[in-house]
Amino acid sequence: MDLTPLPEIVHQSLRLDHGLTLDCGVTLDDVRLAYRTYGTLNATRSNAILVCHALTGDQYVAETHPITGKPAWWGGLVGPGCPVDTDRYFVICSNVLGGCMGSTGPASPRAEGAAPWGVDFPPLTIQDMVRAQKALIDALGIERLFAVIGGSMGGMQVLAWAAMYPEKMFAAVPIAAAAYHSAQNIAFHEVGRQAILADPDFHEGRYRDHGVIPARGLGVARMTAHITYLSETALSRKFGRRIQSGAALGGALFGDRFAVESYLEHQGSSFVRRFDANSYLCITRAMDFFDLAADHGGSLAQAFQGTQTRFLLVSFSSDWLFPTAQSRAIARALNQVAANVSFVEIISDKGHDAFLLDEPDLARSVAGFLAGCAETLGLV
Amino acid sequence: MDLTPLPEIVHQSLRLDHGLTLDCGVTLDDVRLAYRTYGTLNATRSNAILVCHALTGDQYVAETHPITGKPAWWGGLVGPGCPVDTDRYFVICSNVLGGCMGSTGPASPRAEGAAPWGVDFPPLTIQDMVRAQKALIDALGIERLFAVIGGSMGGMQVLAWAAMYPEKMFAAVPIAAAAYHSAQNIAFHEVGRQAILADPDFHEGRYRDHGVIPARGLGVARMTAHITYLSETALSRKFGRRIQSGAALGGALFGDRFAVESYLEHQGSSFVRRFDANSYLCITRAMDFFDLAADHGGSLAQAFQGTQTRFLLVSFSSDWLFPTAQSRAIARALNQVAANVSFVEIISDKGHDAFLLDEPDLARSVAGFLAGCAETLGLV
Repeated sequence: MDLTPLPEIVHQSLRLDHGLTLDCGVTLDDVRLAYRTYGTLNATRSNAILVCHALTGDQYVAETHPITGKPAWWGGLVGPGCPVDTDRYFVICSNVLGGCMGSTGPASPRAEGAAPWGVDFPPLTIQDMVRAQKALIDALGIERLFAVIGGSMGGMQVLAWAAMYPEKMFAAVPIAAAAYHSAQNIAFHEVGRQAILADPDFHEGRYRDHGVIPARGLGVARMTAHITYLSETALSRKFGRRIQSGAALGGALFGDRFAVESYLEHQGSSFVRRFDANSYLCITRAMDFFDLAADHGGSLAQAFQGTQTRFLLVSFSSDWLFPTAQSRAIARALNQVAANVSFVEIISDKGHDAFLLDEPDLARSVAGFLAGCAETLGLV
Repeated sequence: MDLTPLPEIVHQSLRLDHGLTLDCGVTLDDVRLAYRTYGTLNATRSNAILVCHALTGDQYVAETHPITGKPAWWGGLVGPGCPVDTDRYFVICSNVLGGCMGSTGPASPRAEGAAPWGVDFPPLTIQDMVRAQKALIDALGIERLFAVIGGSMGGMQVLAWAAMYPEKMFAAVPIAAAAYHSAQNIAFHEVGRQAILADPDFHEGRYRDHGVIPARGLGVARMTAHITYLSETALSRKFGRRIQSGAALGGALFGDRFAVESYLEHQGSSFVRRFDANSYLCITRAMDFFDLAADHGGSLAQAFQGTQTRFLLVSFSSDWLFPTAQSRAIARALNQVAANVSFVEIISDKGHDAFLLDEPDLARSVAGFLAGCAETLGLV
């Protein structure tokens, strides 16, 4: 497994003026958010779209990643002439609080010159991430966002935005999202966390002091998660029972044999070089805590009471991690408060991952919805 | 985690007279099968039922486990007056080849007085397990089994029996079974294996030489598998988002908080005391290799050509690991060769685990099917 550290770069970032008080009660004094913007903010500052990334995403939504060299993670959806058209809109994407791509997180120093937080980093919520984004939007002088859009954990952030700052956004697009993390979701995350904690190179979160990373544990966590991102059909089509190497019954008791195994191992090992294990613990935990209804007296509708935001909800038929039923429940809650909601279930066999892939129906839905909203708002 | 070794007992076992040549070409000279029998073999030796156990099961199908103290693993289905009625049938259940409950497996010595096989134990197939069972049945003087029955990997063995020794069985009951392991099935197994391999206490399979067991890796493997055994509904009903201990946002970045996490950790830790890690690698691998159609020129029907065996196939509606579609494909293949097939999909929200739980429809189906077969055969 290649564990050569990736080169470091300086991220474009903003330091929040007043720190940030978290849901857990702790105040972080030194908070930085790394972010990227694309396109031009218009004179009335009314064409800004905030893109919220998923668990292992980052701010490089529409350009080649400067460190990993990977293509833009949402290149098909965000860019010039794309559904989220950077010729038309001013697009902002920030690395989430708790992340490891330039924003304050477990790898950041507790204070100027001090040691990193590590596992002592305070537990975060999705709402904390949103609060930090709100501070960034304020700092950029944007009174109201045209839209907030995101998939998976990004969709959770969109929902939290809509509940916390309804007057700060015209439109919301939660994709493959959920208003709470289910017991099964939590269980899969917990398996990944236990694998990280079980890695002797984890050193109770102080792995950097030992010059190592818990690569095997983090790799297993990533592999587990990756299975949940794909549908059974997608896995079967991609790999089936194809043998990758070695005779089916030769060789040792274990070792790569099926193509799906090599693929998963590659997913695991390419991930560990770019992602911080403590960030993974921190962010998965924030997702587990997410339960928007519970925060509003058990009523999801209550979370959206009085909203004027226009919603486009998107789910994928083969997504078993954040299934259509979750989006439907959100649509129902929004209907209860007479919100303006469109809901589309896209027929796809690609599983949860579909939101990141080239899905023409997703592009069409988002493009059409944003165009309609822009017209209503008089954005040219 | 309590890792005190469980007390050892002597298992009732049989040594195969002629060893066993495996699919991989290796011949095991010293093969022992640990087994249990219940009820009485009738004078014509025609009332024997072989029960095949699942991945982590054992021979104690109808009695309290002498080591773990756990109740009979199929107590509701096998016993006096039960659907598999030990007052009427002679029931045999053996620990699979490759297992760790008395049968020859990776923990067994290579030869009398030699060191254990460990990871050098030859790769097994489901068919190898069945060959060993066949030798046991021969040794017990049984010409033809009345029925072979099993769930999950036990169901795979039933299918292999039906394909390999059709003349040796009157009836077959594969429950929650599949004729091949899917890419997703393989992927989940691989995550578990990687977790075991990543455990520093694994010592490349020679953990016993070091006086340790790879408890954390095996625990993670068990946790992952356990999620796949349950439906989302079952997990939600059992745990939902209930908090087990500590304030939701207090304390450290990680640690038990949700009830589902404590439950999984308990599942993992209670498992590692009773199950050998190398056996887990060996048996999961055998399941991955299973592909009955591939062994018959790509045609599942071909595997059952000319069969006179009567089949009862049972699946569970919420089983997403071995879903109904898998049983339906087996039923279709059996129909193609004009076999005698009954197929029932039981509506249950308990997931794959349903085959082990108290499911009245399962009990009724098995009882009715066996009674019909017994009548046909003139068994009183």
